[in-house]
Amino acid sequence: MTSRTGLQAPPPPVLDRCRELVEPALRAAVRTLHPWPRRMASFSLGWCDADGLPDAGSGNRGGKGVRQALAVLGAEAVGAPGEAAVAGAVAVELVHTFSLVHDDIMDGDERRRHRDSAWKAFGTGPAVLAGDALFALAVETLARAGGESGAEAVRHLSGALRELVHGQADDLLFENRPWTGPQAVDIPAYRAMALRKTGSLLGCAMAVGPVLAGASPLLSGALAEAGRQLGAAFQAVDDLLGIWGDPRSTGKPVHNDLHRKKKTLPVLAALASDTAAGRRLALLLDSDAPLDAADAFCAAGLVEEAGGRAFTLAEARRHVAAAHDCLDSVPLVPRAVEELQSLSEFLIDRRL
Amino acid sequence: MTSRTGLQAPPPPVLDRCRELVEPALRAAVRTLHPWPRRMASFSLGWCDADGLPDAGSGNRGGKGVRQALAVLGAEAVGAPGEAAVAGAVAVELVHTFSLVHDDIMDGDERRRHRDSAWKAFGTGPAVLAGDALFALAVETLARAGGESGAEAVRHLSGALRELVHGQADDLLFENRPWTGPQAVDIPAYRAMALRKTGSLLGCAMAVGPVLAGASPLLSGALAEAGRQLGAAFQAVDDLLGIWGDPRSTGKPVHNDLHRKKKTLPVLAALASDTAAGRRLALLLDSDAPLDAADAFCAAGLVEEAGGRAFTLAEARRHVAAAHDCLDSVPLVPRAVEELQSLSEFLIDRRL
Repeated sequence: MTSRTGLQAPPPPVLDRCRELVEPALRAAVRTLHPWPRRMASFSLGWCDADGLPDAGSGNRGGKGVRQALAVLGAEAVGAPGEAAVAGAVAVELVHTFSLVHDDIMDGDERRRHRDSAWKAFGTGPAVLAGDALFALAVETLARAGGESGAEAVRHLSGALRELVHGQADDLLFENRPWTGPQAVDIPAYRAMALRKTGSLLGCAMAVGPVLAGASPLLSGALAEAGRQLGAAFQAVDDLLGIWGDPRSTGKPVHNDLHRKKKTLPVLAALASDTAAGRRLALLLDSDAPLDAADAFCAAGLVEEAGGRAFTLAEARRHVAAAHDCLDSVPLVPRAVEELQSLSEFLIDRRL
Repeated sequence: MTSRTGLQAPPPPVLDRCRELVEPALRAAVRTLHPWPRRMASFSLGWCDADGLPDAGSGNRGGKGVRQALAVLGAEAVGAPGEAAVAGAVAVELVHTFSLVHDDIMDGDERRRHRDSAWKAFGTGPAVLAGDALFALAVETLARAGGESGAEAVRHLSGALRELVHGQADDLLFENRPWTGPQAVDIPAYRAMALRKTGSLLGCAMAVGPVLAGASPLLSGALAEAGRQLGAAFQAVDDLLGIWGDPRSTGKPVHNDLHRKKKTLPVLAALASDTAAGRRLALLLDSDAPLDAADAFCAAGLVEEAGGRAFTLAEARRHVAAAHDCLDSVPLVPRAVEELQSLSEFLIDRRL
């Protein structure tokens, strides 16, 4: 998605700063894995190709490292050094990667970041193992952080994992629900799913640094809620990119989520709009087959005409504002809060 | 496998006693899951059929609850009440169930305990999710046990998970290795795999009670090593059952592991025996196709003739003896040690 001015802001320098702080520990953790899951994990983190060789396109392969940056900034926001968050930052990046690997299996997604997804590259069974290895490594990393704060961080992470599984279960079940009628997925149900599926880990990312640094529950609770709101905003932007994202940026086909008839917020909002465009969209989606290119193009136009695109963008902005309100509600280090706010604005305008 | 007298000893009462102590907490934990993974988890634990209804054959469906019993007896062996181990017992049963669900996906096993395996009953993607839910619930259960001993228990569990993944990775890679020659899987490599894949969680099961009860590292370490040795013994017995097990007990076809050309200890020992039967076995296994019923029958005879069956039974007994030596090496409560020893004897003679 391009920003509304047509220009894209450069990534804020905080992403590079946090990557430099966290990545050595992340790589050290992954190096301790058995060689086979290690290669699959390194591939999934964007560090190598499927043969374990350095990947020429690796600049596009890894994520932006948003979760590790949120963890470091969370610690700095409560006055702790960013170093205090490193074990937590490593853990949330590992859990994020685990969830991508397993979700791509569940969703049947063949592409991720401009190349094959892990199950497509290595096979389903090995990808299940790679995800399990990443999951176990995340828990081990935090558990070894030690002390009462380390134990509290493990409790936060395990709570996030419960929510993540719950959200993923809801999202998978949405696929079997009708597009219209009393059994259709409504906006509040979708919101609850997004807060769980995407919000839980971002909430954990922003709270884990403060928790490891021994901050008060008031502060870590406010940061956790800010992270959850940011996660819901990211999910909304992700839904926009799933329809209108530029394949050169997303690494996925144009109108991808429409071809797959995925129940995302722009579509659900359009269907709930009580407009002529929304009703035509329902007729188009109600057929049994996947949408072909012409139908998907038409559906994208109807979603936009019915207000689904504008609704979703407003939803994203509303969640970002809620996140900023959380940050303003407690006494935090202003410089870190500014960096968190500029990072969240960047992520809404130009995405991941 | 029948015992050598042809009679089967009844299960020791300790299994029922420990189940009564642990199962209410296990069921309470599973009830907190999202309804969909909860149903898949309950199915995998043998509590219901795939539709969530009580299962008429449920007596055959669940495991014997060996891991929960080891956890309870571990606590009692260091003089703590069995209740101290309950969170740990729940966690290891959940991790065990997680590993069965995911391993069946990786191994392509369609049957488990006389019915469809989870991926066969629910689909691969949902079974991945069910395993993840069980894994997360295990970590959460222990993390919520709280205190320094709870944190130490999480470290034990995460260490066991690392070993379990490592062992499963080795086992999967064994499938691609040749039967003979310098690249063949040798007995020491197989032993190391079994200690990791099966020993790690049994070691954790026996140590987690003492750890939660605050026992000294000397005691919990001895119990952990006893559990690892028991695990290696169980793996050896499992390998025997994979060839000679009665389908009425195992719930799997006769000669199942031979049909699938799985590299198990009896076969590897036969191939390493430098006997005429071992060489004929190598020729039979070297063909590209799976073995048909007649070939598998012939292969089972050759494994036995080459000494693979006797070697594996001796290996199991050697590991059980090593486990008992561990228990004798430290001061433990004699009654609990006797129960541990009678349980391990029962499990070697008449299996899981």
